[in-house]
Amino acid sequence: MNPAEQDPKSTRTRKRKPMVAPTAEDLAKKHKEISVAEFFERNKHILGFDSLNRALLTCVKEGVDNALDVCEEVYTLPDIKASLTKEQNDTFHIVIEDNGPGIIKKQIPQVFGKLLYGSRFHEIRQTRGQQGIGISAAVLYGQLTTGKPARITSKTVSGEAAYMLEIVIDTHRNAPRVVSSNIIVWRDENGELKPSGTRVEVTLKGRYIRGKQSIFEYLRSTAIVNPHAMITLIEPDGTKTIFKRGTEHLPGHAVAIKPHPAGIEIGILMKMLRLTKSPTLQKFLMNEFSRVSKRLAAQILSLSQLKGEIAPRKVKRQGAERIINAISQVSIMEPPTNCLSPIGESLVKKGLRKEITAEFVTSAIRRPLAYSGNPFQVEVGLCYGTGSSDDTANILRFANRVPLLFQQGGCVTTKAVESINWRPYGLEQRGGKGIPRGPVVILIHVASTNIPFTSEAKEAIADIDLIKDEIIRALRICARKMNVHIKRKAKRKVHLAKLNLIEKILPEINQKTSNNLGFPLPDISRVVGEIMDSYMFKSTVSYSDLKKSYEVKIRVSNYTETRKKFKLMAEIAEGALVRNVHPDPLNIEDELIIWEVAGIPSGEGMELSFELVGVPKGDYEECVLYQKGLNERYVFGAEVPPEGGEAENIAVVKT
Amino acid sequence: MNPAEQDPKSTRTRKRKPMVAPTAEDLAKKHKEISVAEFFERNKHILGFDSLNRALLTCVKEGVDNALDVCEEVYTLPDIKASLTKEQNDTFHIVIEDNGPGIIKKQIPQVFGKLLYGSRFHEIRQTRGQQGIGISAAVLYGQLTTGKPARITSKTVSGEAAYMLEIVIDTHRNAPRVVSSNIIVWRDENGELKPSGTRVEVTLKGRYIRGKQSIFEYLRSTAIVNPHAMITLIEPDGTKTIFKRGTEHLPGHAVAIKPHPAGIEIGILMKMLRLTKSPTLQKFLMNEFSRVSKRLAAQILSLSQLKGEIAPRKVKRQGAERIINAISQVSIMEPPTNCLSPIGESLVKKGLRKEITAEFVTSAIRRPLAYSGNPFQVEVGLCYGTGSSDDTANILRFANRVPLLFQQGGCVTTKAVESINWRPYGLEQRGGKGIPRGPVVILIHVASTNIPFTSEAKEAIADIDLIKDEIIRALRICARKMNVHIKRKAKRKVHLAKLNLIEKILPEINQKTSNNLGFPLPDISRVVGEIMDSYMFKSTVSYSDLKKSYEVKIRVSNYTETRKKFKLMAEIAEGALVRNVHPDPLNIEDELIIWEVAGIPSGEGMELSFELVGVPKGDYEECVLYQKGLNERYVFGAEVPPEGGEAENIAVVKT
Repeated sequence: MNPAEQDPKSTRTRKRKPMVAPTAEDLAKKHKEISVAEFFERNKHILGFDSLNRALLTCVKEGVDNALDVCEEVYTLPDIKASLTKEQNDTFHIVIEDNGPGIIKKQIPQVFGKLLYGSRFHEIRQTRGQQGIGISAAVLYGQLTTGKPARITSKTVSGEAAYMLEIVIDTHRNAPRVVSSNIIVWRDENGELKPSGTRVEVTLKGRYIRGKQSIFEYLRSTAIVNPHAMITLIEPDGTKTIFKRGTEHLPGHAVAIKPHPAGIEIGILMKMLRLTKSPTLQKFLMNEFSRVSKRLAAQILSLSQLKGEIAPRKVKRQGAERIINAISQVSIMEPPTNCLSPIGESLVKKGLRKEITAEFVTSAIRRPLAYSGNPFQVEVGLCYGTGSSDDTANILRFANRVPLLFQQGGCVTTKAVESINWRPYGLEQRGGKGIPRGPVVILIHVASTNIPFTSEAKEAIADIDLIKDEIIRALRICARKMNVHIKRKAKRKVHLAKLNLIEKILPEINQKTSNNLGFPLPDISRVVGEIMDSYMFKSTVSYSDLKKSYEVKIRVSNYTETRKKFKLMAEIAEGALVRNVHPDPLNIEDELIIWEVAGIPSGEGMELSFELVGVPKGDYEECVLYQKGLNERYVFGAEVPPEGGEAENIAVVKT
Repeated sequence: MNPAEQDPKSTRTRKRKPMVAPTAEDLAKKHKEISVAEFFERNKHILGFDSLNRALLTCVKEGVDNALDVCEEVYTLPDIKASLTKEQNDTFHIVIEDNGPGIIKKQIPQVFGKLLYGSRFHEIRQTRGQQGIGISAAVLYGQLTTGKPARITSKTVSGEAAYMLEIVIDTHRNAPRVVSSNIIVWRDENGELKPSGTRVEVTLKGRYIRGKQSIFEYLRSTAIVNPHAMITLIEPDGTKTIFKRGTEHLPGHAVAIKPHPAGIEIGILMKMLRLTKSPTLQKFLMNEFSRVSKRLAAQILSLSQLKGEIAPRKVKRQGAERIINAISQVSIMEPPTNCLSPIGESLVKKGLRKEITAEFVTSAIRRPLAYSGNPFQVEVGLCYGTGSSDDTANILRFANRVPLLFQQGGCVTTKAVESINWRPYGLEQRGGKGIPRGPVVILIHVASTNIPFTSEAKEAIADIDLIKDEIIRALRICARKMNVHIKRKAKRKVHLAKLNLIEKILPEINQKTSNNLGFPLPDISRVVGEIMDSYMFKSTVSYSDLKKSYEVKIRVSNYTETRKKFKLMAEIAEGALVRNVHPDPLNIEDELIIWEVAGIPSGEGMELSFELVGVPKGDYEECVLYQKGLNERYVFGAEVPPEGGEAENIAVVKT
């Protein structure tokens, strides 16, 4: 915005004679441009600076999110330090330091001293920061509340020394003003020269809290879904917490892609047509979009009755409309998904297990889709059986691996949870609406090249139908699995009571009676059989830390009077390696070991066993058994196999 | 933002060799400025365009809010027309026309084709639009989804003809591009020349709905709190609804004020010091703030150890800090409140009565305060006794006379309602938290020179403590009054049952018995007295449309055996004129008529009556009676007067 157009005098209030109506000409004099920095200076709450405690959190968040983004961008394992010191009653000094590539001197003032300036806005790929507002907003809030400039220290690998700049934002012009600039030798706490990195220091008004919406909680949640990062927090009272690295593997690198033609809006297409450097319309279609081959471009051109040779800027609104229509008629490959970097099934589960000890953990990872042309992907984890069942379900929300701690009520994730009737799945819920009650923790992650946040504070995801539908689908998959678990648990209780009767109580009575009467111990298996008249299946699972494998033992007892042939199936963990199967199975397929049992004589039993390798500890806590061939009514501990396989695992993908 | 800095080529995705880490220099090349129009083009949901139905509503809302603002600004009674026509399946043409002052030709492209451009951002006074984003956002959304330019027609009083311009926004530069420009003769539907006004036409994608979050509902609610406006709606199916003007009086004109020193942030003060034209610090303090006299300026200067003669721009951070400290130590008059234009008690009640028929309506208007230097005022209305008591309370939210239809959960108004334990006040509420259940409608209006909206869509007010506290206080005042009503209602039920016994059932039994037995009718008053042993008070209220007055009759019956002196008090409506009081009262004071009754003989009664003039019909539905001198236990239908008057009416003002 041009500073020359701004007249400082006019910020003063005009005196006006009362009740003399101004004319259009009078009003015109008052019209003027508003700088985006001035806008946010006035509306700082929109950026997440609406209360003293949230202000501190937002500042740390913007710094850490940037640090994580930039480290991933240069394939570096992030090592991030956040420290807070109290300067006065409500004034804090925040330092965020990373081991990223550094920022070249010329860019530093722009990056930290200008709102709407950044490198990630124009790229289509999953990043935490996208708006080019966050960190400069922290600088703005600091100078607004304390008048102090932000201090930036940065060193690049190729730079000989580090630069230390003090910056304020001239909000009137939305432009940085460098207050001081120095060259320094940057050493870390061990006195070693720092190879590269950036340190941001902001002094601001705030209040330091602990608890649910705290900096500690934000960093803890961040560490859970970013296990490749090491994060050190030094709190104002000096407490030092290190969230250690859980893996040396960087998450899948999100690659920038070109826009996908499906869902592109006509206004965007017209702008692209106007600004492109492609000489012809055909080249434009092929070069500027992903998934458009020469053949497909020809198809689109033919359907829209446009010639491929014309200059793109010659295409007007009607032409653009025809192109949009043509695009909706041809079939185009889905957008490339390497622009996304989901958390992944194993990490979702691990994250939940870290968060909470639960009897049952499940997850559902959806396939990537696109809303208005923006690729996105939904991941959901659910754990059941923890804490008091009177509480409402605890929802952990993440967007592009960043925990969302505020505005839960306004977030599409919450709306998705609330819109499901959880009662058929076994949870309590008033009126079949709202957040269910029960011992449940739900993790929801939305990854996208463009998360539709409800405001610049990036705390809640807007209510986009397609995203909500995807979350609901993933939640239902988890809910079904949870329901199977809850039902099995109830069945198992009955089963165990029966087993207890057969294996403990009856033999004890037998023993005592014969002892008292002085008779020899009679064989009660026939009596048991008559009482039970059923097959009993029992599996026990144990993990060996030494062998790093699960050992599974199955015992089948026939308490009926007949002997029948049947098939026994044991469910194994996904991707597990099976060994030492005893007796030899008929087959191992579809995550099932299948045995054919020729028949167990009445009153007798048999033992089966196997080992599973390659399953992380905690991922296989029970072995589910199925049988085929025996009458369900006389079977305890094994289910009839579901028809057509685990249909619930097959995601229905909307295109 | 400087277009020269933007390189169209760089909007294309860079190709990158995988896994070769980019350097700081590589990253620097990707950094660039983001135009605010591009930002919102990508994040249109932040502006309220997140779904098809909301998009239509947001567009109408921005147009109507602007029209109301501009008409009030020139003291004109607004006459606004909004019409929607369906062009295709999901494409609508919206026209908003007002009778405002018009816009001069030069300004039209800026006002409609540039985001963050406006006349009301830099003024401190209550207006609907403040951001300079709204209407240009509608233009942006229209061109994004249909590619069509917006068409603006405007005529000023002094202009000879009207201008009709077609405008698109060059989002890359956040600048208007005029597609066509014509001079026309603008006639209204009756063929008359239009003296002045503006018409905005936008074609956009959307979905037209009815119901709770509809355009109809938005206009209906707008009409309730803006009864000086006439609003015509033509729906896509041709249905025409006119929300008629309820008053010819314009609402109190909100006058622009200078900032108040209390609560000013140091960053703002430093900016003002830097940009002021005042030659000396003393003049600066006196000229640029409201409520700073010469004496007060001297006081501030002395406390901050600064000389009044120095140039303001010589004052650095430390000096500014001292000024802020000094301001917090001196006592300053509260900010002028003529910058606000509240709805007012009568209109709040009228609005609620229009909305719903209720047995009880009350309101609480708080005194204006300031948060972070921004004057604001809270008004609350509550009505009880309507609809099913199973539903949760219905909350009607308004900000600067604009109804808020979305994001209820994220709004400070809702949070205030939820934070109150409503059970002691007589409403059902699970766990004493959340929105209460019961036959209740609550209206909350927040008026401010700067409503802290949670996003640019202006649908929810941020959770500012001081604002929440004020809403809670106003709600509690209404809740207490509602509770008195609920308790009185319960008492009256008992009272009426007793009265029924005395006045109907006993005499009937007496009649029948004597008829059957053939005895003459005996006097049962002594019997009644023995049964009742009490004083009975009964008031009846009726409104005469002819005389435009309330007639109140009171009957007191003494069913005790003794005769006692007592005082009788009848509550009258605030500001009412009393006439024809019979018998002569002892006094009329504090909204009470007070009689001294020498005594009523046992078994007898007396009649009292009066008339009330100047009370709107519906505002005085019952006459509450108090008595002093009789033993409470033997009195039905009159209360003991509350000690120290209606303490609940006295608002506690936090400064």
